[in-house]
Amino acid sequence: MKKLEDLILTYKDFPKKGIYFKDILGITQEPETFNELIIKMASSEIIKNADAIVAIDARGFIFGSAISLKASKPIIFARKPGKLPGQLIQKKYNLEYGENSLSIQKESLNKFKTFAIVDDLLATGGTVSCVADLLKSQNKKVLGLLVVVELKELGGRLKFKFPVEASLSY
Amino acid sequence: MKKLEDLILTYKDFPKKGIYFKDILGITQEPETFNELIIKMASSEIIKNADAIVAIDARGFIFGSAISLKASKPIIFARKPGKLPGQLIQKKYNLEYGENSLSIQKESLNKFKTFAIVDDLLATGGTVSCVADLLKSQNKKVLGLLVVVELKELGGRLKFKFPVEASLSY
Repeated sequence: MKKLEDLILTYKDFPKKGIYFKDILGITQEPETFNELIIKMASSEIIKNADAIVAIDARGFIFGSAISLKASKPIIFARKPGKLPGQLIQKKYNLEYGENSLSIQKESLNKFKTFAIVDDLLATGGTVSCVADLLKSQNKKVLGLLVVVELKELGGRLKFKFPVEASLSY
Repeated sequence: MKKLEDLILTYKDFPKKGIYFKDILGITQEPETFNELIIKMASSEIIKNADAIVAIDARGFIFGSAISLKASKPIIFARKPGKLPGQLIQKKYNLEYGENSLSIQKESLNKFKTFAIVDDLLATGGTVSCVADLLKSQNKKVLGLLVVVELKELGGRLKFKFPVEASLSY
């Protein structure tokens, strides 16, 4: 079985100059490694204790959906503008390279009280903070964040009051 | 267990006037129903015979990733502009409401010869045709398309020479 760290490639100056982009998609080309990663993430106490998962558009969907299946947990989606129908809650955020906003379908939150946030990578933490603020605005509780990769130097986790679990750190 | 068809809501005039948007995200809030759907999709001969899955940005990731995990098949991703690093193959397409383009990482195709395309919904078939053309341009074979929902009236499947399997049709 190939090692997780050997499947993550670094691209310099993507998507903008000065950014070292960690591409996690190679993991999904190796089913054994992907399966082991998902088993590990799905067995986290953060997932086990959460009523539901929130996955962040779009690479977070890849890991969130697989964890949802493995752990038998409901999953909802934080999406970029114009993607979700229905009544939405929405918030802007600043990210490592630009500004954007995320939306969640308001009704999808009604059945659940506690959430685990899932994404592929934690950088400055802008997107995760945005999702956490959206959840808190509806009186929901964030139990923690699970990511495949954490870029420690950027200090993203210092923004949060909840725990962060990363499978790999750089 | 809730029925698949009861979890799909229709939104009128989204994302544009005249479109009846089928929202499949409700499925993922019901783990039992989601699991049954993924078991069924993952057991398709199209998946079993394919070297790898191609999932289409971004709702296709949700189903593709879960099928990949269940069937132990590699998965690669057809993404919208600006999302993928590295050497890409790219093609424009017309969709039900607008124009866009999709890219695939060229290296991710190297290890595989035959592919199953996975998406949430088949409408006019523009995005799927685009992905199939991208694969064919690299001398790869498309074994078939799996979707959760097919909008039959739009005749998308008539565009393809490969089989289409839909869990629900409207």
